[in-house]
Amino acid sequence: MKYSLYYWPEIQGRGEFIRLALEDAGADYVDVLRHSSDFSFPQSQAPFALPFLVAGKRVISQTPAILHFLGPRLRLAPMTEPGRLWVHQLQLTIADWLVEVHDTHHPIGPGLYYEQQKRAARRRAADFLAVRLPKYLDYFEEQLRRASGRYLLGKACSYADLSLFQMVAGLRYAFPSALGGLEKRYPRIIAVIERAAARPRLAAYLASPRRIPFNRQGIFRHYPELDLSPKKSKKT
Amino acid sequence: MKYSLYYWPEIQGRGEFIRLALEDAGADYVDVLRHSSDFSFPQSQAPFALPFLVAGKRVISQTPAILHFLGPRLRLAPMTEPGRLWVHQLQLTIADWLVEVHDTHHPIGPGLYYEQQKRAARRRAADFLAVRLPKYLDYFEEQLRRASGRYLLGKACSYADLSLFQMVAGLRYAFPSALGGLEKRYPRIIAVIERAAARPRLAAYLASPRRIPFNRQGIFRHYPELDLSPKKSKKT
Repeated sequence: MKYSLYYWPEIQGRGEFIRLALEDAGADYVDVLRHSSDFSFPQSQAPFALPFLVAGKRVISQTPAILHFLGPRLRLAPMTEPGRLWVHQLQLTIADWLVEVHDTHHPIGPGLYYEQQKRAARRRAADFLAVRLPKYLDYFEEQLRRASGRYLLGKACSYADLSLFQMVAGLRYAFPSALGGLEKRYPRIIAVIERAAARPRLAAYLASPRRIPFNRQGIFRHYPELDLSPKKSKKT
Repeated sequence: MKYSLYYWPEIQGRGEFIRLALEDAGADYVDVLRHSSDFSFPQSQAPFALPFLVAGKRVISQTPAILHFLGPRLRLAPMTEPGRLWVHQLQLTIADWLVEVHDTHHPIGPGLYYEQQKRAARRRAADFLAVRLPKYLDYFEEQLRRASGRYLLGKACSYADLSLFQMVAGLRYAFPSALGGLEKRYPRIIAVIERAAARPRLAAYLASPRRIPFNRQGIFRHYPELDLSPKKSKKT
């Protein structure tokens, strides 16, 4: 199957979670908008927003739904319904986490510039780093402890492991100081993301020009004034 | 199949989207925490947060995943994979929309009181009502136009229609003034939610004490200072 991915060509963003799965699986795909700006939404079953994926006659939007669709087809999810639904649940939790990362720099609205919401962003980022981020990291560390394997599902790598890699990569870019102070508490997460990054096809992708660098248009953004070590921020 | 739903007993919240589906289908279920505060998380495949659903030996968390699981079983989603995935995509867009509603009163952090983030809430609510809310309503109105039927999928009611009902019901409670000015632009949405509310089992549920009233602990909250008519708020 040949896949066409439609996503903003200048950023990693949500599309990157799908790119990582397609690249790791060695799938035959085109990242359409990096080569052409010419596209139209399908007439029915229209996406609310990018990304969307075209697979034959099917058009699928919403990152977790796209990964749910691709999972078994790329051998990055179990074939059984319970296993497939479990990795989907993990991905939905990552999606919630990602919205919270986005809102650290855009707490008031996506249509306003960062500079118009800087004060609120400082407060939201402090709360995120002190309260929310450890909650998500604790959760995934605990899932890895329970799975007692190499990956979130145990033996086999799933798209949720690749997404966890992307979360930590993005957080390291956006909040290097805060992350530096946290990482030693999450040895299982760090082991998994290093394992994922060392997978041959993924490593080749990450070293290639196809991997768009993190930047200040994406979801993960580095603003030094938001990267406060949790110890320095007030407890809420 | 007998289902056990675990969700906060004082609010509609995310759990209500599942309650509506179970009630409309006449499913055999227990809303466990309304009768007992005694529960423990499963040892593996633990939920990140409430709600979660127990169905036999299975435990499923994340509202859209629970509805994806229940959909065909309750005859509130197509049996085919493409149809089932499409209604799931609609639900994921509703889930995104719901987060934005929540953040109108909690733009800085869920761990802080509303009173601690009132100023930011006013700005976020104004942006939501002027920019984001019409974007979501336009999208669902357009989907209904394309489906050219009684419901989002055409002839048959799905859990996404029940969720759309819940969104409008919640928005009417939280933002009566803003909604009042918007509703006439969305005749198809209004027709669908009236149709949903008139379904016999759903109507019986809504009139029963099982339907928890909206309140200021839930996701939809009425604070008059946030309910600004979009015309009065500054364009962004």
